[in-house]
Amino acid sequence: MIETPYLLFLGDAPDPLAAKVAQGIKDWRPEFAVGQLRLEGCRADMGIPDMTLAEAKAAGVKTVVIGVANRGGVISQKWKKVLVEALEEGFDLASGLHNLLRDEEDLAAVARATGRKLHDVRVPAVKYPIANGVRRTGKRCLAIGTDCSVGKMYTALCMEREMRERGMKASFRATGQTGILITGGGVPLDAVIADFMAGSIEWLTPDNEDDHWDLIEGQGSLFHVSYSGVTLALIHGGQPDALILCHEPTRAHMRGLPDYKLPTLEAVRDMGLELARVSNPGCQVVGVAVNTQGLDEDAARAYLAEVEARLDLPATDPYRFGAGKLVDALEAI
Amino acid sequence: MIETPYLLFLGDAPDPLAAKVAQGIKDWRPEFAVGQLRLEGCRADMGIPDMTLAEAKAAGVKTVVIGVANRGGVISQKWKKVLVEALEEGFDLASGLHNLLRDEEDLAAVARATGRKLHDVRVPAVKYPIANGVRRTGKRCLAIGTDCSVGKMYTALCMEREMRERGMKASFRATGQTGILITGGGVPLDAVIADFMAGSIEWLTPDNEDDHWDLIEGQGSLFHVSYSGVTLALIHGGQPDALILCHEPTRAHMRGLPDYKLPTLEAVRDMGLELARVSNPGCQVVGVAVNTQGLDEDAARAYLAEVEARLDLPATDPYRFGAGKLVDALEAI
Repeated sequence: MIETPYLLFLGDAPDPLAAKVAQGIKDWRPEFAVGQLRLEGCRADMGIPDMTLAEAKAAGVKTVVIGVANRGGVISQKWKKVLVEALEEGFDLASGLHNLLRDEEDLAAVARATGRKLHDVRVPAVKYPIANGVRRTGKRCLAIGTDCSVGKMYTALCMEREMRERGMKASFRATGQTGILITGGGVPLDAVIADFMAGSIEWLTPDNEDDHWDLIEGQGSLFHVSYSGVTLALIHGGQPDALILCHEPTRAHMRGLPDYKLPTLEAVRDMGLELARVSNPGCQVVGVAVNTQGLDEDAARAYLAEVEARLDLPATDPYRFGAGKLVDALEAI
Repeated sequence: MIETPYLLFLGDAPDPLAAKVAQGIKDWRPEFAVGQLRLEGCRADMGIPDMTLAEAKAAGVKTVVIGVANRGGVISQKWKKVLVEALEEGFDLASGLHNLLRDEEDLAAVARATGRKLHDVRVPAVKYPIANGVRRTGKRCLAIGTDCSVGKMYTALCMEREMRERGMKASFRATGQTGILITGGGVPLDAVIADFMAGSIEWLTPDNEDDHWDLIEGQGSLFHVSYSGVTLALIHGGQPDALILCHEPTRAHMRGLPDYKLPTLEAVRDMGLELARVSNPGCQVVGVAVNTQGLDEDAARAYLAEVEARLDLPATDPYRFGAGKLVDALEAI
């Protein structure tokens, strides 16, 4: 686990999009985001206090999170001075970049000397077990998509927020870098060794109270040939009681695969459910989350109504119109 | 690739079963197995010439293969003297044991000093790409099972042998340790990082002549919750034109999962085919391979007849009764 709260390091982010990790933390765990640190030329702003390292220390910050992505995922030399200083001041560092903090000789040396931690969340820090398939207590919900990057993480986070507002017991369980930085922990599933994928998800979503829901962050798609194995490990390791179908209706082909059309929601429903019932015979498909950012409001509402009628399932864009319908469906189980 | 031919190191194998890797090489690539080296107390015998290292050198051997598994997969101290000597004499070493040759300080030091190679086939030696899903030339056949360890590797090897005897172009493509040692190359799929699983199989089975068949070694099962993700990566990365269903009819539950019953052959057929058609719309299920070692001959033949009638597919135990029916089915495509 990464110690919280955080100082969000935005570096010299060329635009707001480059700081989407920081934005995710600020949106979903505002209580972790006590301040931001921006270098000259930074064009991102989380709307939280700018802080020096000394101010962050005084505010109780434990970890400086690199909330910005450079082209190529590298750790810029411009950042080094601040990062070294942060370690010397007693902060841990956390990063989801491809290039690892631990591989930077200067950072590694200072971290060793100061006893601080370098959290590279792209790399598993745990020796996961092989999945044993034993049924666990508590309830689990997993979002499965027609494609990659159709809003599975946002769906789970929106549902967690709505459930907590209703007083329900709910935990977002991160399976990707951004999710891990947002919540401070999780499994970087795409970097786990094949034999241990499903076991890592069992580890991530252990026995829990009967009325507690894990909201497991989905990855990939059963129909995305590059990553489908990761998705199936999530389904079998997660033992979901409830599946949410996720879709982005304006996409012309599978992400990164120009020769592949998206499957229908019906195909994802049927395939996902049959596979999920291998590890949890009681699994149900309870709703549809549509990422409607490519549609204007009228078109979005019309599309959702059409999906509801066609699939006989509640459908919403949880980010745009709220996750209430999906949470209602979980409560009805 | 591991250089051939081999000297099979049987060590102090307590029984023939402990030397099953050596047996596999001797059975399936006899031309690679020019001799065996046994220590005192060895209770395995491949029926090939016993050789000293000097005799093996004279016979043209390039690599000493550890063909025996110790309890726990460790590299026994009793073996060390011979293995060090082998490196000094100019042989490479190859092993599929859990404990790695490279992690043994003495072996690593001698290998460095002599410039010899230590092949730990449990560990990927290649940086695999992410799968791109582009259709490849040539034909591919994949065995998918109701469970793990139901004879998928033997099915592929039996088919390869039969096809070569018929003058067909066929290559067994290893995806596990034993298969890699048998053939000298392959992908240790269970040790590949999640994001690269399907890509490693694309790499393993590249473009080929139109009448060439890759016989891809299957792993796991879509219905085995510990390893199903590995199986799906094989299906999507392999783009099979033909699927063979594999089954062991006497098994009471899924291997290692006492709470899980085996799926029916029909369920594996339908699920496997639908998923395979994502990456290869022309894929067909062409036959059934049954591991009948738990049945006497009459019962085996009766079982196969029943499966043929029920599934309307050719069924055989390729190891016991030959792979002819399965190869006929490939020829008919």
